[in-house]
Amino acid sequence: MGIPSYVMPEYRQNPLTKEWVILSCERQARPSEFLDQPARRESSACPFCWGNEHETPAEIARYCDANDKGSWSVRVVPNKYPAVSLNASSRERQPACNDECLFRTAPALGEHEVIIESPRHVVSLTDLTLSETEYLFLAYRDRIAAHRAAGQAQYVQIFKNVGSLAGASIEHSHSQLMALEQLPQDLEREVAIADGYYRRNGRSLMNSVLQAELEAGTRVVAESANFAAFCPFASRFPYEICLAAKTAGGHFEELQAGELGELAAIVREIIGRIESMLGPIAYNYYLRPAPFDIDSSDQYDWHIEIFPRLVKVAGFEWSTGVFINTVSPEVAAKALRSLPDQRGN
Amino acid sequence: MGIPSYVMPEYRQNPLTKEWVILSCERQARPSEFLDQPARRESSACPFCWGNEHETPAEIARYCDANDKGSWSVRVVPNKYPAVSLNASSRERQPACNDECLFRTAPALGEHEVIIESPRHVVSLTDLTLSETEYLFLAYRDRIAAHRAAGQAQYVQIFKNVGSLAGASIEHSHSQLMALEQLPQDLEREVAIADGYYRRNGRSLMNSVLQAELEAGTRVVAESANFAAFCPFASRFPYEICLAAKTAGGHFEELQAGELGELAAIVREIIGRIESMLGPIAYNYYLRPAPFDIDSSDQYDWHIEIFPRLVKVAGFEWSTGVFINTVSPEVAAKALRSLPDQRGN
Repeated sequence: MGIPSYVMPEYRQNPLTKEWVILSCERQARPSEFLDQPARRESSACPFCWGNEHETPAEIARYCDANDKGSWSVRVVPNKYPAVSLNASSRERQPACNDECLFRTAPALGEHEVIIESPRHVVSLTDLTLSETEYLFLAYRDRIAAHRAAGQAQYVQIFKNVGSLAGASIEHSHSQLMALEQLPQDLEREVAIADGYYRRNGRSLMNSVLQAELEAGTRVVAESANFAAFCPFASRFPYEICLAAKTAGGHFEELQAGELGELAAIVREIIGRIESMLGPIAYNYYLRPAPFDIDSSDQYDWHIEIFPRLVKVAGFEWSTGVFINTVSPEVAAKALRSLPDQRGN
Repeated sequence: MGIPSYVMPEYRQNPLTKEWVILSCERQARPSEFLDQPARRESSACPFCWGNEHETPAEIARYCDANDKGSWSVRVVPNKYPAVSLNASSRERQPACNDECLFRTAPALGEHEVIIESPRHVVSLTDLTLSETEYLFLAYRDRIAAHRAAGQAQYVQIFKNVGSLAGASIEHSHSQLMALEQLPQDLEREVAIADGYYRRNGRSLMNSVLQAELEAGTRVVAESANFAAFCPFASRFPYEICLAAKTAGGHFEELQAGELGELAAIVREIIGRIESMLGPIAYNYYLRPAPFDIDSSDQYDWHIEIFPRLVKVAGFEWSTGVFINTVSPEVAAKALRSLPDQRGN
């Protein structure tokens, strides 16, 4: 077996764990602003700043205030260093391989987009204006809906890395979106668990958890008319937060502008509380919409996970999959809940 | 539901993923030498250095040269801040909870030990003498055998964190051991996969992979009489390495002193190659012995995973479980293979 030449990104399956990885050697070319500390970069050199729009690939979408057509608040562009690819020729390269195959591959098909959250060189979601945050969540919804309508992807993963320790390679506040033609393994597992629960109990698992958390109260962090956020009972990380809709069965991509504004405000509020308590810290969040082939949305409710990167993942976690958490979610929620309101501008 | 008081560490199960975490609030008291950079600490202040033996709990085992009885090369002590506990009273606290339970707990029963690898204040495995490295692997074997004989644990996980980015909280070179009464979820999955493969093919999965890698050759990094190391086909990380025995079916805890010496030398050699190429870098390794209830050792072969911490885990990996790797294992293995021999003293 010679060394294959990697023109396109590919999935490879670990035969010992059945888990897939993406091998994407082109991404090595991408710039990394960070060594161990995030370096503040001059706005003139930042490809995401106002005035440098020519440094990104052609825009997919743009959001701007109705009264300021020449400007923009949020832009969506293709990722210049995509981890997945739409190249059709890779669809044919797949060698025949059964379940016993020790070297199983699949083309890593999909689209990788970047959502630039502000024309200003800001770092965290809390640096955005409330209006920019609302456009951001509108962009999330519209892009998921567009990929759903296009009919190629099975699933869209949206995520955000803030700070070097959270894996950010560009400082300017942005989110990423991956529209994937293969359902990722964690989603496959979660969907099977949620589906089993739904068939046995006739209720959405995510919504059952949310209702139980609202009833218990001890782990609730914030609440608005339609959404609630809590520190999960089995939090992997200190100050981990899960946010979901109070009503079961709604697809994220069907949320209305008013609801998205409410959601943007509560996410910003929660991150504000985390930063108010822990300082300007690295964090990740991700949005898990339902996979597109789920008809009854009661089977899998979308949710958002937010977690500051306070601790390093060490050998025990890597070897067992079991995370050791030293801050109980009850203590974390109480501390976050008791902070003053962080909403502003 | 009030805030429970955590006298003992406990397992909690995430109802959405069925994954267990360990909540161990006592560990918050443990010292962290590191902020973002590992700080070189004076030997006189280090609890693992020669002369400071009184700063650790009472010794479980000690290894020293036959001709120098007053000294020691490797010491095994209980972890002062254990993430699991042997407290018998917690066995009774377990509330009844079925599969539909949204707040499922279990006592985190087990033992947590530290293996101090040298009396000198050194940092990496490659700073050890070959003799210290051999004692270390002897200690691994003896402690696994002791926990197997004691009959309480289902599984023993051994791991090593070097450097702040790899989650080390004490700089002085050491390994950790957790003897667990509950099989961790990653092992449960791997054992099921290996067992299915064995029943269908009559061969050990790990050994089939190793033989296929030796035949392919392109991902092999190093080889000795009884062991071989390769960059896995589906590596999650750049320069990830898997090491296993060439002969299937041997339990790690049954290895003889000569084989352990050979194993110690090849592991030290591999880490030397990684450091020679990448500099003094943070890394983790872990040893996965077979769970104790596996009789036919063909069903699950022990192996070691080594990986430098070059990249940060970001939002995509956390949300999907799919790792994006930008260095192909063929390129990594070729680079590591072509380095000069690193064996010394």
